[in-house]
Amino acid sequence: MKMSSASLRAQKHEDKGYDWFCGFAYSPAYGLGPEEGVYRRDPSSIIKVGDYYYVYYTKSFGPHFGHSSKRDMGSKVFPWDHADIWCAKSTDGVHWEEIGAVVKRGTKGEYDERTVCTPDVMEYSGKYYLVYQACPMASYNGRMESVGMAVSSSPEGGFEKLKETLISPQEDGEIFGEEAENINKGMFNGVNHDPMLLHYNGKFYMYYKCCGKSFDEMASFGKDTRWGVAIADEITGPYIPSEYNPVTNSGHETLLWKYNGGIAALINRDGPEKETIQYAKDGINFEVMSQVTCTPQAGGAYRCEDTNSSPLAGLRWGLCHLDERGAQWNCIMRYDIDMRNPYAHAHGYPESNSRSLGRW
Amino acid sequence: MKMSSASLRAQKHEDKGYDWFCGFAYSPAYGLGPEEGVYRRDPSSIIKVGDYYYVYYTKSFGPHFGHSSKRDMGSKVFPWDHADIWCAKSTDGVHWEEIGAVVKRGTKGEYDERTVCTPDVMEYSGKYYLVYQACPMASYNGRMESVGMAVSSSPEGGFEKLKETLISPQEDGEIFGEEAENINKGMFNGVNHDPMLLHYNGKFYMYYKCCGKSFDEMASFGKDTRWGVAIADEITGPYIPSEYNPVTNSGHETLLWKYNGGIAALINRDGPEKETIQYAKDGINFEVMSQVTCTPQAGGAYRCEDTNSSPLAGLRWGLCHLDERGAQWNCIMRYDIDMRNPYAHAHGYPESNSRSLGRW
Repeated sequence: MKMSSASLRAQKHEDKGYDWFCGFAYSPAYGLGPEEGVYRRDPSSIIKVGDYYYVYYTKSFGPHFGHSSKRDMGSKVFPWDHADIWCAKSTDGVHWEEIGAVVKRGTKGEYDERTVCTPDVMEYSGKYYLVYQACPMASYNGRMESVGMAVSSSPEGGFEKLKETLISPQEDGEIFGEEAENINKGMFNGVNHDPMLLHYNGKFYMYYKCCGKSFDEMASFGKDTRWGVAIADEITGPYIPSEYNPVTNSGHETLLWKYNGGIAALINRDGPEKETIQYAKDGINFEVMSQVTCTPQAGGAYRCEDTNSSPLAGLRWGLCHLDERGAQWNCIMRYDIDMRNPYAHAHGYPESNSRSLGRW
Repeated sequence: MKMSSASLRAQKHEDKGYDWFCGFAYSPAYGLGPEEGVYRRDPSSIIKVGDYYYVYYTKSFGPHFGHSSKRDMGSKVFPWDHADIWCAKSTDGVHWEEIGAVVKRGTKGEYDERTVCTPDVMEYSGKYYLVYQACPMASYNGRMESVGMAVSSSPEGGFEKLKETLISPQEDGEIFGEEAENINKGMFNGVNHDPMLLHYNGKFYMYYKCCGKSFDEMASFGKDTRWGVAIADEITGPYIPSEYNPVTNSGHETLLWKYNGGIAALINRDGPEKETIQYAKDGINFEVMSQVTCTPQAGGAYRCEDTNSSPLAGLRWGLCHLDERGAQWNCIMRYDIDMRNPYAHAHGYPESNSRSLGRW
């Protein structure tokens, strides 16, 4: 029997099985929805403590002006500039109650003077750890972001910041300069965004998005996002970037979960392998497992207990943000993976889901 | 230097170059837009004759009722049921003037009694050839579709149908039966949709979508679409299905163009390799060249002369249809590929395009 190249590839797809395929359905996260003058973005993973689910997210107020405001060092540049980290709780994962800011940006001269944003959360040994992007610069030019950590014995507040950042940007010689404008520059490890923390193999794996691979590419072409991982023996560090970084070649905000002794990752909108789900048996060497569409943006999954029951159990539901063109204010919404028929999702039925919420 | 699996794959991406990446922008096709009570779908490739661009498409009137109407054999099941093939022309590719139906479904007992739809067009030796899906069944149950052809010496009318279909469905024993309901069944070549015709290497290559690979998969899981090709020495046939069929493992409606001695294909929403652009040096063995998002549905490209100037020249602009959930009536819109920066599209900037048209 003669077989085309595509059919030979299909055999490999079939060998991997179809449990890695899914669709995504979107619905309101009441209480975190659209609000005039308010940005809510970048929800963390969701943890359950007692009767409540908790989520942490970036919140900022008022319009932003992009880099046209660069002459005014204080102007809000991005929706995640001049932001704080807020917390909300819910009993059903659908209706959310805002508790308030739990980590606020620092004061003048501190490593998080300018903004704190894009948090993730982990419960470990009875304490709650937030990791987040922190920026010290007077002018937010998209460089020099660090990863900060704050710790509390309650999920609802009392978070105390560590004195030192967990990961700091590396200024790679001529790549950084006063001319840097709206593009994150630098070799890998130059800037560190969107941290996500997992307790894995007895260590702490902090994945993060890093913008910029090499100066030539960045100068010529625009942004390039990949993920790295930094590993620590203690949850508070020190975190050592893996020698294998970057561990992905694609993906915007990090979204990872544990499965069957390895780490699974949803690689969303950026890069040549955008819109895929990948898996690394060792947390480092990721392979493409499935192709997905209409993926959550800046999503955080519910950290359920049964992540080994199926490949996508750890992705089952969560929150993400809505940051579409034309939407002036960002809001947070809920996603649920659609696993009604993994094979059908692999093969296109039900057809493409929509990130639109319709009536809210 | 240690490299992750993802970085090793990225090197291969880079070897292929970035000219295969693009975004898609959508805009109105005035004159073919939303209209209460009317479905316009499945635009053909676009040809230019004199001062006019011409397009052919599926047009039907009134609501459809799905398979709940199966007891009434005459009820309209799909938007492309009880349809005819219409023609429109334009001087600018933006504003279109409907000319009227150019191929109407046949009379009782003919192979296209029920519907004619999803046309493609080719100009060859001063004549205009339409290929299209044709259904003879009194009850449209999604099987038994054939591919028909009609020929004219004018692009605006006078099309005469060939007496015989170009490709007919193969009824594969027990797979076909009275119980067949809403799913296309049968081995590959069971049903033949969405033909697209190319003059290639001195022969005529007619690509088509085929639903159903094997009985087991279809019975268990739902639909499964792949593309085949049938090849003829003369444009009117006979068309012989390739022994290598299926030639893709994914893709819904066909969209192909010639490039550099081979055939390029936009693989859209269905299958494990959905949302990719592929290339076959021999028109048969397709390889993935790029990952794309928000692809045109049921698109047809303008058949420009300079398809060899770059990989995506033959995809540069065209028409497609809008068939989103919640849109009661389908309409035709224009797409343009966004090639402002192929590398940027590979790496996610500009960010995801939207199929939404906004105000019309």
